[in-house]
Amino acid sequence: MNQINQVAIVGATHGNEFTGGYLLKKFEQFPHLIRRTSYETQTLLANPEAFKVGRRYIDKDLNRCFLSQDLQNSTLSSYEDIRAKAINQILGPKDNPQVDVILDLHSTTANMGLSIIIGNKNPFCLQLSAYLSAINPLVKVCLTQTDQASYLLRSLCQCGLVIEVGPVAQGVLNADLFLKTENLIYTILDYLEAYNQNRISETYDALTIYQDIGSIDYPRNNLGEIQAMIHPQLQFRDYEPLHPGDPIFLSLSGQEITYQGESIVYPVFINEAAYYEKGIAMRLTQKQQLSNISKLI
Amino acid sequence: MNQINQVAIVGATHGNEFTGGYLLKKFEQFPHLIRRTSYETQTLLANPEAFKVGRRYIDKDLNRCFLSQDLQNSTLSSYEDIRAKAINQILGPKDNPQVDVILDLHSTTANMGLSIIIGNKNPFCLQLSAYLSAINPLVKVCLTQTDQASYLLRSLCQCGLVIEVGPVAQGVLNADLFLKTENLIYTILDYLEAYNQNRISETYDALTIYQDIGSIDYPRNNLGEIQAMIHPQLQFRDYEPLHPGDPIFLSLSGQEITYQGESIVYPVFINEAAYYEKGIAMRLTQKQQLSNISKLI
Repeated sequence: MNQINQVAIVGATHGNEFTGGYLLKKFEQFPHLIRRTSYETQTLLANPEAFKVGRRYIDKDLNRCFLSQDLQNSTLSSYEDIRAKAINQILGPKDNPQVDVILDLHSTTANMGLSIIIGNKNPFCLQLSAYLSAINPLVKVCLTQTDQASYLLRSLCQCGLVIEVGPVAQGVLNADLFLKTENLIYTILDYLEAYNQNRISETYDALTIYQDIGSIDYPRNNLGEIQAMIHPQLQFRDYEPLHPGDPIFLSLSGQEITYQGESIVYPVFINEAAYYEKGIAMRLTQKQQLSNISKLI
Repeated sequence: MNQINQVAIVGATHGNEFTGGYLLKKFEQFPHLIRRTSYETQTLLANPEAFKVGRRYIDKDLNRCFLSQDLQNSTLSSYEDIRAKAINQILGPKDNPQVDVILDLHSTTANMGLSIIIGNKNPFCLQLSAYLSAINPLVKVCLTQTDQASYLLRSLCQCGLVIEVGPVAQGVLNADLFLKTENLIYTILDYLEAYNQNRISETYDALTIYQDIGSIDYPRNNLGEIQAMIHPQLQFRDYEPLHPGDPIFLSLSGQEITYQGESIVYPVFINEAAYYEKGIAMRLTQKQQLSNISKLI
């Protein structure tokens, strides 16, 4: 990345994730908070209709609408498809975007703390992520699989970050997480300013990431109905090691179901409300230490 | 109350409160769990369409549809109005119900632990509530204002209890709260059995209740938009004393807003997701010690 000229802060991509939506309202009311001298910052309330009614989406999940072929497909005309195309015009187009950095603000019912989710190993993103996790132990960095990442809003530019905070219920503001997310945004904006002004003194060589490797669904019956819950011992244990044989579900009838994998994994998005309909009880990651990341720059 | 002949366990009155809905599914699969010898127990999934789509309601809040005049008003024809009339036929009619006891299972994003909410000082209900709070310190008993109580599903019979558990996000199953709710139901069913069989050895003379006295809304602007969040010091502090001058909100701009009442109150339903649209940031209660309740029997 040469110079950062345009930064977009996006909120309410999911209308019932209030942290991002209300942070945007704050920034629109007090624009000096996100103003820096060396680049422009814009805010974008991604799904205003869903935010108004406090639902994740109106017709379909907006954050699955950004595949290139879907953005170009004029027959897709749900509310979210239309919004995706509008957002692609404001921030994109996807292959040649107007913005250099996207911060897409999300929240989760899982205990993800302050998570940064990236979709590629863009050297600048890795340096920024390493900096954030170095100065704040609450920050964890997830790397999504490429095929997943390509339909997400953040895929509109090379340095698109999701900030995923939790645990917080859908449809509520949690002041503590609101303030932590706000501070994380200022830290990022300050880093971008320092980068533009050649004031980044330290580059990082190593970064711990949680590499997404797949997901596990709830046990279901023939009708697709859930037959088990996240085990109490796993609830809120995002980013902690899960060993083969550890309990992961408790069936409605009271039986423990254990993890049948062959090696240690690190679950995230454990018991995320919005993922019930997607067939995801948790996502599994591998904890990896990336090294020599400063050489990528 | 003479003899208990009919008990109804109701779940998913709100479709995104999964604890009750999935407990019903369990009871329907294993009916012996709720079978007792001296009375009949039936289960009722109150709002099946809302439960299917994981939303509180389809058209309007079902748990506000049970006013006598509304049940008799044939022009009210929303999905929930129709469901309310059907439920009134199954459990009611309201002035002469077929069931003696209703257990209506709810959950909340507020930290209400295991709350029993009653709508009147029915002597039998008070004894049952006193028993439950005596044997389990997690159980708290709330008494709703009469005008509020009359539109609720539980108002179909004199001994209608809401079991309100939290904190749990909408649209998720929390195994720990699921198990606690399940055990509380068995305790109640066993008490009813013992009552019928004249095996209640101890009557209680005193009961601590939290008497609902009103609510506070979020600070809003002229457009009705929320301008402040529950203060971090108040979040999850349901049933704890709130003193005049204590902080209750933190505005988006960072200012503390304090409680302006003149005496100590005990807030409940703090930051309940479903109450944002109802203009309720929390409900206020007074903690009261009822005495001589055994003389009411």
